[in-house]
Amino acid sequence: MKVGIIGATGYAGEELVRLLLQREDTEIVWYGSKSYVGQKYASIYQNLFRFVPDVCKEDDMEQLAEEADVVFTATPQGLCASLVNEDILSKTKIIDLSADFRIKDVSVYEQWYKIEHRSPQFLEEAVYGLPEINREKVKKARLIANPGCYPTCSFLSTYPAVKEGIIDGNTLIIDAKSGTSGAGRGAKVDNLFCEVNENMKAYGVASHRHTPEIEEQLSLAAGEKITISFTPHLVPMNRGILVTAYGSLKKDVSEKEIREIYNSYYKNEYFVRVLEEGMVPQTRFVEGSNFADVNIKLDKRTGRLIMMGAIDNLVKGAAGQAIQNMNLMFGLPENKGLTQLPMFP
Amino acid sequence: MKVGIIGATGYAGEELVRLLLQREDTEIVWYGSKSYVGQKYASIYQNLFRFVPDVCKEDDMEQLAEEADVVFTATPQGLCASLVNEDILSKTKIIDLSADFRIKDVSVYEQWYKIEHRSPQFLEEAVYGLPEINREKVKKARLIANPGCYPTCSFLSTYPAVKEGIIDGNTLIIDAKSGTSGAGRGAKVDNLFCEVNENMKAYGVASHRHTPEIEEQLSLAAGEKITISFTPHLVPMNRGILVTAYGSLKKDVSEKEIREIYNSYYKNEYFVRVLEEGMVPQTRFVEGSNFADVNIKLDKRTGRLIMMGAIDNLVKGAAGQAIQNMNLMFGLPENKGLTQLPMFP
Amino acid sequence: MKVGIIGATGYAGEELVRLLLQREDTEIVWYGSKSYVGQKYASIYQNLFRFVPDVCKEDDMEQLAEEADVVFTATPQGLCASLVNEDILSKTKIIDLSADFRIKDVSVYEQWYKIEHRSPQFLEEAVYGLPEINREKVKKARLIANPGCYPTCSFLSTYPAVKEGIIDGNTLIIDAKSGTSGAGRGAKVDNLFCEVNENMKAYGVASHRHTPEIEEQLSLAAGEKITISFTPHLVPMNRGILVTAYGSLKKDVSEKEIREIYNSYYKNEYFVRVLEEGMVPQTRFVEGSNFADVNIKLDKRTGRLIMMGAIDNLVKGAAGQAIQNMNLMFGLPENKGLTQLPMFP
Amino acid sequence: MKVGIIGATGYAGEELVRLLLQREDTEIVWYGSKSYVGQKYASIYQNLFRFVPDVCKEDDMEQLAEEADVVFTATPQGLCASLVNEDILSKTKIIDLSADFRIKDVSVYEQWYKIEHRSPQFLEEAVYGLPEINREKVKKARLIANPGCYPTCSFLSTYPAVKEGIIDGNTLIIDAKSGTSGAGRGAKVDNLFCEVNENMKAYGVASHRHTPEIEEQLSLAAGEKITISFTPHLVPMNRGILVTAYGSLKKDVSEKEIREIYNSYYKNEYFVRVLEEGMVPQTRFVEGSNFADVNIKLDKRTGRLIMMGAIDNLVKGAAGQAIQNMNLMFGLPENKGLTQLPMFP
Repeated sequence: MKVGIIGATGYAGEELVRLLLQREDTEIVWYGSKSYVGQKYASIYQNLFRFVPDVCKEDDMEQLAEEADVVFTATPQGLCASLVNEDILSKTKIIDLSADFRIKDVSVYEQWYKIEHRSPQFLEEAVYGLPEINREKVKKARLIANPGCYPTCSFLSTYPAVKEGIIDGNTLIIDAKSGTSGAGRGAKVDNLFCEVNENMKAYGVASHRHTPEIEEQLSLAAGEKITISFTPHLVPMNRGILVTAYGSLKKDVSEKEIREIYNSYYKNEYFVRVLEEGMVPQTRFVEGSNFADVNIKLDKRTGRLIMMGAIDNLVKGAAGQAIQNMNLMFGLPENKGLTQLPMFP
Repeated sequence: MKVGIIGATGYAGEELVRLLLQREDTEIVWYGSKSYVGQKYASIYQNLFRFVPDVCKEDDMEQLAEEADVVFTATPQGLCASLVNEDILSKTKIIDLSADFRIKDVSVYEQWYKIEHRSPQFLEEAVYGLPEINREKVKKARLIANPGCYPTCSFLSTYPAVKEGIIDGNTLIIDAKSGTSGAGRGAKVDNLFCEVNENMKAYGVASHRHTPEIEEQLSLAAGEKITISFTPHLVPMNRGILVTAYGSLKKDVSEKEIREIYNSYYKNEYFVRVLEEGMVPQTRFVEGSNFADVNIKLDKRTGRLIMMGAIDNLVKGAAGQAIQNMNLMFGLPENKGLTQLPMFP
Repeated sequence: MKVGIIGATGYAGEELVRLLLQREDTEIVWYGSKSYVGQKYASIYQNLFRFVPDVCKEDDMEQLAEEADVVFTATPQGLCASLVNEDILSKTKIIDLSADFRIKDVSVYEQWYKIEHRSPQFLEEAVYGLPEINREKVKKARLIANPGCYPTCSFLSTYPAVKEGIIDGNTLIIDAKSGTSGAGRGAKVDNLFCEVNENMKAYGVASHRHTPEIEEQLSLAAGEKITISFTPHLVPMNRGILVTAYGSLKKDVSEKEIREIYNSYYKNEYFVRVLEEGMVPQTRFVEGSNFADVNIKLDKRTGRLIMMGAIDNLVKGAAGQAIQNMNLMFGLPENKGLTQLPMFP
Repeated sequence: MKVGIIGATGYAGEELVRLLLQREDTEIVWYGSKSYVGQKYASIYQNLFRFVPDVCKEDDMEQLAEEADVVFTATPQGLCASLVNEDILSKTKIIDLSADFRIKDVSVYEQWYKIEHRSPQFLEEAVYGLPEINREKVKKARLIANPGCYPTCSFLSTYPAVKEGIIDGNTLIIDAKSGTSGAGRGAKVDNLFCEVNENMKAYGVASHRHTPEIEEQLSLAAGEKITISFTPHLVPMNRGILVTAYGSLKKDVSEKEIREIYNSYYKNEYFVRVLEEGMVPQTRFVEGSNFADVNIKLDKRTGRLIMMGAIDNLVKGAAGQAIQNMNLMFGLPENKGLTQLPMFP
């Protein structure tokens, strides 16, 4: 498979490169970058010294479509939607790691992202690439909207409880915590070491763009419109997302029964690990892997279910999930190239 | 003032030492320790090299009561309750940093802490040492129950909203995040650098002992029994607690009005800073100080109020608040010795 | 005293602000900034919320000289030299935290800093502001060259050994490690959290600009020209510099004797703590303070002396030392406003 | 291949497990532990949840020799030497990650390690398992002394310069910095998060046990006895060792020539990457991999060569190198199971 990457010099792009280089059935033919055109890729990411002789190229989707069997766009919102067209989709498959095709309702997209959607005609065709719920659609797709990092972790943590009507979806509060690689590699004062280290803060309170994405997917699961509270936080660590979600119980059901439901939902899912009673998801225990660890705790005292999940934001939350989608699209084993065990410490 | 400290070699104890050494009106006459009896204090806390010639002594409350005007007990649960008696209280004042006298209902205490209370007769007399609500009682107290770190931050963040009936107290969900010094200085594998660094996890889910303490104080504020969800998390940083709290609105009120209410509640409070619109509390901006930074965000879309707060767990969450109480008990300016500005970065 | 700060929005500038605000005898009349003119200072440094109502002003040294008794320039190299003149020095005192007046030989300065010196006529007058060696000169100075962070720590760690001829100065190898605040608050990819965290690297190998500054001062101490190796490293922590220095012994002397020499050199120095046998300087034990902790270890096996030192790069390595110099220049107690004990953890 | 691990619950042991589980030609038949006998391995290392159903077993070398083709001992000093005998070595191969068989001179071992060697009769047979110099011997060995983490990094960084007589080995000063996983998983106060975070310190100054190991190997390379200075430092990061070494030049040679010599020494070494001019080894760029990145800088001004190297202490410094040795011993490709690219960020 020949692979092109637009946005290869961001953290998600680099994780794609790192993971794909370790396979024998893929060849990266295009290291796209806006800021580093003409520079050696390995001079930017010295971890890949000796393994990537290539220099970075400009974004040229037309040319890429000729050369690559699949194109990953790990780029800012709006770019993929501005580049894609029928001709391109007839020549290559696209896995978009931006939010351009995640939200089906174009007005919701434009309201939260404050940009005009340039290719709304592909919204219906684009498949929301969460294999755990859309596996069959992914297999046949030409255009994948790769889910956001927070939505992936939030959804996998709460899906069975919402789908089964165990909790009232409209009581759902998702308090999420993310490592700093989620903020990208842009040179901003806010992301400097000294600003992040020894600090914890919320951001995007009541306004984060992943909110409507989570709501849309949970609404589909519940079969009714669900509105949630979602608050992300920045944590002084490189990788990892932790979700702690709270929902009011609608049914009289025991913790054991809920865990069994979770187990039955995910029993065939290689990448979702339902932990045992008393274990909590921890980001260190999924770091570097494509796993999502989830568990629940029933709090009888308050009548609430506490749902917890952990992923590596750059793997299951971005590059790993994109490759999982690629595997499905090309008829390969879903976990091919993604069997790395979490690295600890 | 002559001061004795039982539990001077824990992190909260050391912070007491550090803060008190920088005053001219206090003298530490007793460095109590269980593990380091006979060792030089400055060999354990080398930051105080040349400033503390003393060696650590055993716990001897009888003797201490003779020598000290005030005794701080920064010790595990149960110890203070086992040492205090009328004779001692007639000779000295006690500020207990453990949970022994925080919860008025002894059965609640024994249920959550799993130990028998050894001095329930002092529960009524003991004053819950949150000066922002109990200032006058603190001034006259002989025995102070110094609040927990999580309860201090949780309470100050939510108090005006609960007290004014802006939110329904029983919908309150408090998601709290703490630096690792909150876990103490015990040599446990779970608190090793490599286990905490690059990690985020919840702990004590639906069972943390600070829950009933928060509930009791909020119930007093609301004038009715309030049950909350409280989930603490461990963060890879030394100091700091961040609280993100969610409550359903009971009243039709604007964000601006709520902020004005917060401002009116705290306008005379030196240590509570109500931030301006758009600012979020961040632990780095209170580190090393006795400040509690709070702010709110009204989410009209969900009908919820998001309340946020940040403190330094070792200062306003422990030693600083204890000294604030001491100042009040001895008729001193409340912020004496506590005017350190937060250190950043 | 009325104080003006040019470069108040960098980390060293902010540390000056924080320390000066806690004194009662100083008033900051000018918050100078290049990037934030017109913005509220406390919106940039939220730790100082409610304590600084001022907005940032442009650099206007002429005006500042009228208003301030002392001006701190915490600015990039070259700026102070381009602003200072006889008229200004006749009206106010200047403490320059940049390197402009540290090196007496203008050709050495221009060679290492690659800029033309704009005021070489003041080089002779300017006093190298290390009070531990130049105290009397500082008292009478109009213009202080505040030492660099690495030179301060390197010099205090090695001075007695070099001065006494215990080691051969030309064998001196200084391996230094610094927290990231030393790299400043500029928005550079290299200083992003994810680039610094979980990493250790050398930089400026054999070319760091603090090298000639250290050499000049040690040469003065030795009474002969000394050439050293100096290698700085970037450490994933906010504050702190640790120096490990190696020198070949010239004399037959015991470790105990060398420590006694160190003690005799520093016995009247409030800010230099010579540790006891077996203790090593650690950055956590000086954090937030103006102390320099030093110790030595004699390695008979190799015939080398290992000299170690630790400081807080923003305090003794920048703002604290600048205030120490200010105190001396105004006839105040040298440690006024600088008696903060190190904060740990 | 059936593999047994004694000391599987330490950090190095767990890294062995993690790396071996990802191969298809190895089966771990014995998870040995002293502290966790009878406990599920995956309850201790939750990252391996669902992949390791086994419980921990006691150390039983006799039984292990029957069941395993190769035994790794990742245990404290002295244990392997006390367990090994001719009968066991006739049945299985042993790769010892402790120091027991690294130093050929038993008196040197006993002097630095302060324990009696229980099996000196195997010292001669044991092969120092640094494949880059002892590849052929490793292939035929029954007993491998797997090198220490510091010695591996120190040696690979300095070997060509010492061997070629470019520098005077007796002027060599090695200043090393290590992540905290190198301190092991023991529950010690010194390794708590709050004690390590925001700190940097030297330890084992002039007395660290890896010193004679480095000296022995460099002496073999130089063909004469070499005595060095070696100082390790603790860094607030999980993984990684960085070495900065200084040596006085003996020859008139250019930096370019020295780099060419390094390149010629390592040109066939998969795991040693000689960086290009101007690049510095950084621990983040080898993390999670078996690579050693090295580079040199010639400082003409001082007449010294600065040699730098970076490894992941748990991979090339422990488990990865042990597997590299295992591959050689069993006639497998040397990099089998070790082709992970460094993970960044």
